[in-house]
Amino acid sequence: MGLPKIGIGMDCAVIPIRHGGGLVLIQTVDYFYPLVDDPYIMGKITCANVLSDLYAMGVTDCDNMLMILGVSQKMTDKERDVVVPIIMRGFRDCATEAGTQITGGQTVQNPWLTIGGVATSICQPSEYIIPDNAVVGDVLVLTKPLGTQVSSISYQWLEQSDRWARIKLVVTEDDVRKAYLRSMDSMSRLNRVASRLMHKYNAHGATDVTGFGLLGHAQNLARVQKNEVSFVIHNLPVIAKMAAVAKACGNMFQLLQGHSPETSGGLLICLPREQAAAYCKDIEKQEGYQAWIIGIVEKGSRSARIIDKPRVIEVPAKEKDGELW
Amino acid sequence: MGLPKIGIGMDCAVIPIRHGGGLVLIQTVDYFYPLVDDPYIMGKITCANVLSDLYAMGVTDCDNMLMILGVSQKMTDKERDVVVPIIMRGFRDCATEAGTQITGGQTVQNPWLTIGGVATSICQPSEYIIPDNAVVGDVLVLTKPLGTQVSSISYQWLEQSDRWARIKLVVTEDDVRKAYLRSMDSMSRLNRVASRLMHKYNAHGATDVTGFGLLGHAQNLARVQKNEVSFVIHNLPVIAKMAAVAKACGNMFQLLQGHSPETSGGLLICLPREQAAAYCKDIEKQEGYQAWIIGIVEKGSRSARIIDKPRVIEVPAKEKDGELW
Repeated sequence: MGLPKIGIGMDCAVIPIRHGGGLVLIQTVDYFYPLVDDPYIMGKITCANVLSDLYAMGVTDCDNMLMILGVSQKMTDKERDVVVPIIMRGFRDCATEAGTQITGGQTVQNPWLTIGGVATSICQPSEYIIPDNAVVGDVLVLTKPLGTQVSSISYQWLEQSDRWARIKLVVTEDDVRKAYLRSMDSMSRLNRVASRLMHKYNAHGATDVTGFGLLGHAQNLARVQKNEVSFVIHNLPVIAKMAAVAKACGNMFQLLQGHSPETSGGLLICLPREQAAAYCKDIEKQEGYQAWIIGIVEKGSRSARIIDKPRVIEVPAKEKDGELW
Repeated sequence: MGLPKIGIGMDCAVIPIRHGGGLVLIQTVDYFYPLVDDPYIMGKITCANVLSDLYAMGVTDCDNMLMILGVSQKMTDKERDVVVPIIMRGFRDCATEAGTQITGGQTVQNPWLTIGGVATSICQPSEYIIPDNAVVGDVLVLTKPLGTQVSSISYQWLEQSDRWARIKLVVTEDDVRKAYLRSMDSMSRLNRVASRLMHKYNAHGATDVTGFGLLGHAQNLARVQKNEVSFVIHNLPVIAKMAAVAKACGNMFQLLQGHSPETSGGLLICLPREQAAAYCKDIEKQEGYQAWIIGIVEKGSRSARIIDKPRVIEVPAKEKDGELW
C-alpha cells in the first residue's frame, strides 16, 4: 500500500524518510502579517496558526519549530527593541504550551512586519490521519467560531468614522471590542486537543480553516476524498454580532457565503455520525470551548456547499458579565 | 554521551526525534532578496544557499524542501506571471540536482520580492558532523572564492556613472561583467561534493560563508570549539579583480578584512593537515573547481583572525578565452 502523497495544497507536506521504519516527515511553513495590535498575542496567534496545519492532520506532537521574522524598517530602533522580543515571547510561550520548542529561524529586514514559522514532526503511521476517508453519513464538525477577519476589521473601524457609520446601527462599540477580544482568544488557542480527539473518535479527515474561508477549505478537503462524497454545510457558528456586521456591509466580507478569510481558525473535521456529539462534548469538557456539528457528508462529486439560508449560531449564545465565552 | 545541542547561531537546528534509534532532525530556514538580475539563476542561488547550511554539517541528503516566496506588489501582473515561475523553476532544478524535492511552501504578497526555503533532513549519527572538533595543527580550507557582494555591486555600478568613476581606474567593464558571471556561477553551485568529501577526509568541523563574511563565520566556528584553539587566516581567494575593486573603494566593502557578506559562499572546513591537500585535489577532480588552504588552527581562546597582510589569490589565476574558471 503506497503512502498517499499530500503535496502543496493540503495542509502539510508528507514525505517518507530515507531511514524507513514507516516514519514520515510532516511539515508546514506559514507566514503573514500582524492583524491584532497586541504583539504578545500576535506571537501566540502566529505559532498557533503554524501548528494548526499539523493538528489538522492529527499530528499532536511537533518535534521542532523554526521562527521566521521580517522586521519593518519603518520601526524606530526603540519600537523594534520593544516589540520584536514581545512577539517572540508570545510565539515561544505558545510553543511551550504546545509541548514543543523553537530551535532555529531567521530574521530579515522588510518594509512590512512579517511573522511566521515552520513546524516539523517525524511520525509513525498511527500518529497522523490522511484526510481522505470521508463516507456518506459522516457529519462535519467545526471547532472554533468564524468571524476573525470581520471582528479585526470592524475593530479598526472604531477609529474611522466613515467606515464605522456603515455598521453602527447594528453593533455598539462595546460589541465590537468584545468580538475583537473573542477573536484574539480564539486565534491564539491551539487546535491540539481538537487534534488529539480526532484519533479517539475515529475522524475520517480534517483541515484547518484559514485564508480561503470555511467554504474554500471545505472544498479543498472534499476534492481529495477517495469516496464520491460532497459536503453540505447547514450551520455557521459566528463570533457574536459579527454576522450582523457582515450583513450590514452587504457582500463585502462574504462571511455567510463562507469566503471570509480566517486566521488560525478551527479544525473542520469529518466524523462518523455516531461519534460527533461525543467529540463535541469531550472538547467542551477538556477545554471549556464549544464545537459544533455544522454539516453532513452526502453522496456527490467531491465538492462542498453552504445551503441557501444557513442557520447562524451566535457564539456565545448569551453574554455573561465578565466572561468572554 | 549527550548530543551537543546546536541552537540558533550555528548553521542548522539539530533535534533528537521522539522515535529514537539515534535519528536526529536537522533543519534550516533562509530567505532574502534577489541580488542578480536573472530570475532563473536567482532561484538556483536561493536553493543552493538554503541547502548549504545542511552541507556545512556534512549532511548530504535533504529529505524535503519548502519554498518561501514573497511576490512584490509593485510587479505588474505580467511581470509576476513571467518572473515568479522562472524563479521557481531555478529553485526546483537546483533541488533536483541536489537529489531532493520541494513539497510544500508558501507564497505571500510583499512590498519587496523575497525568496527562500526550508531544508530538512532526518539523519543517523554517521551522516552529520558536529563542527566542534578542531585541533591544533589542523588547517582551514575554503571551497569557493570570496567577492560575491563586491562583484554584484560593481556590476550595478556599470549603470551609475558617479559610482563607476570610483573603480574604473582599476577594472574594465569587461572585468566587471566577467566577475559578475563568475559570482553567479559560484553562488548557484552546490556545496554538496564539498560536504561529501568532509566525511572522506575526516573533517573536524565546518561552516558556510554567508552574511557575516569569511571572518564572521570563522569566529562563529571558533567560538563553538571544544578544544582551546584559534583560527588564523593567511590567504584570501577572491574572484578575479574584485580585490582591486575593494581596495579602490577604501574600507567600504571590508572584503580583505573578512567582513564582506557573501551569498551562497563556500564551506570553511577544519581538516587534519595531512588530509587537506588531498581534499582540495579531490574536489577539483570531481567538480573542476579549486579549493584552497587558507589558514591554520593554533592554540588559542576560540577566536579567529586574518593576518596583517593576507595573500590575495586571484581566481582564476589567469584568464582563459571563453572560459569562466
